[in-house]
Parts: sequence; structure tokens; C-alpha cells
Amino acid sequence: MGMEQKEKNYIYPAERLEAFGKSALAALGLPEEDAALCAARMIDADLRGVDTHGIFRINHYSQRIKAGGINLRPRVHTVRENAVTALVDGDNGMGHVVMHFATELAIRKAAESGLAWIGTFNGNHAGAGAVYSTMPLAHDMIGMYMTVANANHMAPWGGVELILGTNPISVAIPAGEEPPVVLDIATTVSSYGKIKLAAQKGESIPVGWMIDRKGQPLTDPRRSSEGLLLPIGDYKGYGLNVVIGMLAGLLNGAAFGRNVVDFNKDIVSRNNSGHMIMAMRVDNFQSVEAFKGEMDRAIREIRESQRMEGVDRIWLPGEIEHCRIIERRERGIPLAPIVVANLRQLAAELNLPDRLE
Amino acid sequence: MGMEQKEKNYIYPAERLEAFGKSALAALGLPEEDAALCAARMIDADLRGVDTHGIFRINHYSQRIKAGGINLRPRVHTVRENAVTALVDGDNGMGHVVMHFATELAIRKAAESGLAWIGTFNGNHAGAGAVYSTMPLAHDMIGMYMTVANANHMAPWGGVELILGTNPISVAIPAGEEPPVVLDIATTVSSYGKIKLAAQKGESIPVGWMIDRKGQPLTDPRRSSEGLLLPIGDYKGYGLNVVIGMLAGLLNGAAFGRNVVDFNKDIVSRNNSGHMIMAMRVDNFQSVEAFKGEMDRAIREIRESQRMEGVDRIWLPGEIEHCRIIERRERGIPLAPIVVANLRQLAAELNLPDRLE
Repeated sequence: MGMEQKEKNYIYPAERLEAFGKSALAALGLPEEDAALCAARMIDADLRGVDTHGIFRINHYSQRIKAGGINLRPRVHTVRENAVTALVDGDNGMGHVVMHFATELAIRKAAESGLAWIGTFNGNHAGAGAVYSTMPLAHDMIGMYMTVANANHMAPWGGVELILGTNPISVAIPAGEEPPVVLDIATTVSSYGKIKLAAQKGESIPVGWMIDRKGQPLTDPRRSSEGLLLPIGDYKGYGLNVVIGMLAGLLNGAAFGRNVVDFNKDIVSRNNSGHMIMAMRVDNFQSVEAFKGEMDRAIREIRESQRMEGVDRIWLPGEIEHCRIIERRERGIPLAPIVVANLRQLAAELNLPDRLE
Repeated sequence: MGMEQKEKNYIYPAERLEAFGKSALAALGLPEEDAALCAARMIDADLRGVDTHGIFRINHYSQRIKAGGINLRPRVHTVRENAVTALVDGDNGMGHVVMHFATELAIRKAAESGLAWIGTFNGNHAGAGAVYSTMPLAHDMIGMYMTVANANHMAPWGGVELILGTNPISVAIPAGEEPPVVLDIATTVSSYGKIKLAAQKGESIPVGWMIDRKGQPLTDPRRSSEGLLLPIGDYKGYGLNVVIGMLAGLLNGAAFGRNVVDFNKDIVSRNNSGHMIMAMRVDNFQSVEAFKGEMDRAIREIRESQRMEGVDRIWLPGEIEHCRIIERRERGIPLAPIVVANLRQLAAELNLPDRLE
């Protein structure tokens, strides 16, 4: 959060940014309802502090929409279905629309049957994984989300060809009085976004984030195009990455490997982005009340365990994001000047009533 | 495999070791059928090359059985159940018996409904995760397995208290002509077993495996009791580890965190070990034939992608183990002299006909 102070960020109430996003997407041609839904899911990401996956992305989405790379009137529908699984064709619609549809379907099926796994294909970038994995929480369900990243910046272990992405996984588990436990991680040590940010700031990146094509550490982010992102835990993260790509992409007939379209370089071609969402009722296994009590106990045991010298607090997965949601709901969402400048430019292009002045 | 040559290992046919394991477990009091099943699941691990989770463990199991720490006549049964989930009480039986029961149940339910998630509690150490995650493969299903490790050698991120284990995950995905893709990883950089092995050999361990209680790298494995295992990808692996512990342990009312019994130090107390197994038919999403074709294509794309200088081959997750299964079925299973000595001692104690001479 230091950055926010240093760069003198602008701060906007979440409601205002959400309304702005909705207006912009509607002006770009999305149906009112879809524009509202996409804006809401983007602001969910901003509230969590996943700034790289929130309203910041709207300029990119706008370029793709203008170029005809997104179907604005998709027929999002299930092509295969039983009581506990479904395959959803996103019809090249906005990723948020497709994943919202899939997640609601997972929750509905899990409410009836206890468990559901929905796969999607023909989708697009849908923002932050935790936005979807956390939707089942309100129904006393566990959520799990995986996706194939929309660009390849990693090689297989021992290789140099960029045929794998940052393929993330998110898991959300409800608790009682404590915040839910929410894992939301890429399977690479760093995202590509963080490396581009370091390059912009003229900073070097730590050993362990990238290697060059000879396997040597690459610490100058301006040379990132010569390098490969490293997986977490070396061959272990590579394996996890491949498995996520197969479960969220290949299984659904979505892109994985060499047929992934780099959505930064190509804004026209169909992405065929693949995602999966699972929802599972906790009361398959024990009463909701007992489970939540045990979660609270385990969370407190971890948080209150002995800390290393110099460590102020032990955080549970997703707890920092939980605090940020409360803070940002109350005090607004900080945006970097460059992000605000881009949003204002978009507002001018689209002739929106709110120019974020 | 270098080690095998250096130490002049003994080599036994898989069938002989399996028969030996069965006799030993039967002599220890297991019913014939359970003894056969446990021995088969142990040899599965040895065939894969997961030597630390195969027949090697039988001496430890034997101590626990003799001390009364295992229920030899367990009533393994479901205590909650619907079409797609079940909670299985292992009644403190051998972990292999409990997990075999749970995995067969998962496969049966998935065959009918497309998908199933089975949680277990009151179990024990069940050997290698891939042994169970791969059982659904023969039914054209994907398998997923997680468990809570039976000893805590890791602290929460920022902490120093050993309240987390190596909590592993295994995922198995069927292919066509190619071997299945099988991930089987602990969420720590190294297992504790590897560190004990390095200590025995008088070797140092790499930076990144362990830290001491001040957060400094610990590279002398003889000091391992002062140290903490590190998770893969720092806070990311810590998060994954916690989530696995909650899904495989806490959700099932099994041990997680401080209530995990260190099975090396305490061979009497009920472990209440928790596991989960998921099985899912691939034809929920596309035809088995089409899916397997796509898997083969993706596997070959990864294997044949450009290699880093000096790298002979790119391996898919589980491919080395696949080659090892073929090799060891044909040429036998190599065992280190110390392992053979321990097995021979057990054979003498139990007065078995085969002394592995």
C-alpha cells in the first residue's frame, strides 16, 4: 500500500467506479444487464485489492470490443449437462458474463445435489479467480476455480518455449465469525504484470522470478521478453500448472498450450478461454454450524501461533484481501494516476456523463 | 537411480515383495483380504518409485500394530452419504484399507452420477497419493486426492510453530496412447524424509528447503529439528497447504493443525488421519475418445517443445513414474541394504517362510 501513498493515488467510492464501468460497457454496446454484471465483478476484484484484474482492465476490454473480438450478444448456454456437471459454451461473450452464469449454475446444482463441477469454453478473461470461487460461500459451500491464463509466459520444466501460462487456482472455504479462507494464486512465482510494473519503475526483479533461455537468473525486467516465468516449487509448480490447464482448458475443449491466443498481442481472434468452477455444500460432511466452529478454531490456532522475530501478524489465506474489502468499501478504491488517465480518456471517447474528474 | 547402483541394492520381483508384505501383515493379525490389499497398495508405490511410501514403511506399520495403534478389524463405513458425496469413518483401520474403500466408492458413485467426492476420517497413513488418484483412470475418470500429513514439520507463513504438515495433492488425468498425466506433490519444497536421508549420508541440503527459527537458511540436515520446512512458492504454497488440510482433514472431522499426532513419535494414539478422493468421468464434457486424442496431442506438444541447452528430455508430470513402473515390473524393485535388513528382521520376528534371503 506504500505505493498508493507515494504516487498520490486518486480515490473513488466503489459505487461510483461500478457505475462508471457499467456506463462505459453499455456505451460499448453491452446489454444493460451484462454491463452491470461485468462492472460488478470488476469492482469485486478492486475491492479485494487485485488491482490488476479490476476496472484497470476496462481499457483493454474496450479495445477488444471495438475490434470485434468479443460477442456482445452471446448465447451463453450449456451443451452437455447432468445433475452435477455441465459444459457451458460462452459463445465468445465477456468472460465475466460466462463465469457468472457458470458459477450460478454450479451453486444451483450443488444446492440440489451437494456438489457440482462446471466447465466452460469459448469464454474470455474473467478477472480475478477469487471473485468466482467466493460466490458459493454465501450458500455455505466451498468454491474452487481454475483457469488457463490468456497468454503464455512460461515454458515446460526443462524447456524454453513459451507454451504455458500463469494458470491460477482459487479455493474459498466458509468460516463462522472469522473471514473465509480464500486462496487465490497463480502457479508462477510472479505474474507477468508485476514484472512489467517493475520495468516501468526502473526496478530490478528478485532472483527466482524469471530465468533466461540458458536457465540463468534474469533480474532486469526490461529484458523480460527474453525470459521465462518460473513456476512455484520448480517442477512441482510446473506439474500443478499443467494439470490446471488440462482441467480448466483441455477438458472443456478450450485453449491450452500452443493454441492459447495472447490476448495482449491479438485483440481480434477468438480466445476460446477455458475456466472451471466447483461448488460443494459443507453439510455433505458435517453440520454447517459444527464446520464453521471448527474453521474458526483452526483459523485462530494458525493466526495466534508463535511468530518469527520481526513478524507482526500471521495472515490466513485471503485475510489481507478481506481487510481490504472492508477498508475500500468504507474509504474508497485507490487508483494510480495512469489508470485514472486511461479511464478518463475512455470516458471522453465514449462521451460518458461521468468523466471521473 | 544413481543411488541404487552406488549402494549395491538388492532387487526383488514385485510379486515376491507383495507376497512378503501380505504374509507379514497377515502374521501381524490383519485379515487375509486386508493384508493382501495393503501389500498391493504398498507395492504400487514401490513400482512408481515412491520408495519412501512403499514396503519400506512396513516396519513402522508393524510397530504401530504391535503397540495397538491400529484397529485390525475395523468397521470401515459411510456415516453420511448422498449420490455424489460420502463421509467415511475408517474406524482406525490401516490407511490403505480405508482409502481403497473410499476410492472404490468414489468410482462407483462417479460411474452413476458423473462426479463424486469422498472424505474420510479416523484413518491412518495410506502410502503414496498417486496410488489412489490413479485408480479412477481405468474407468476413464479423472482422480484427485489430498491428505493431511501425519506429522507437522512446517509453520504458518511468518510463524515458527510446527503446526502444518507437508499436505500433498495428487491429480491423475487419463490419456490415449500416451501415459496418463499424474501430479503427486507435497506442498513443501522437500519432504522430511529427504532431509533425514541427507543427514544419514552426511550431505548438506540446498538453500530453500529449510529455514531456522530466525528465518535464516538451514543447510545442515543434522540441525533439522531446529528448523522448519519451507512451502513451495513461499506464501502461495503455505496457502495451498492450509486449504488442502482443511479440505482433506477439517471438513471430515479429521486431524488438522495442532491436533495432528506425530506418527513417528507416538505409535499408540489414534491418528484420526483425514483424506479425500474425487473421481470424475471425462465424458461429462466430451467423448472419451476425443478427450484422449486431445490429451495425447497436448502431451506430445509439451514433450516435443524446445529444450534448454543440456536438457535431454522434457517430462510430463508422472511420466518418469510411468517409465519406472514398466522397468520395475520387468526388472524388479531395488531396495537399499538397510531396508532389506529391516524387512529380514521383521520376517524373523514374525517367523515368515520367506526371509528375503
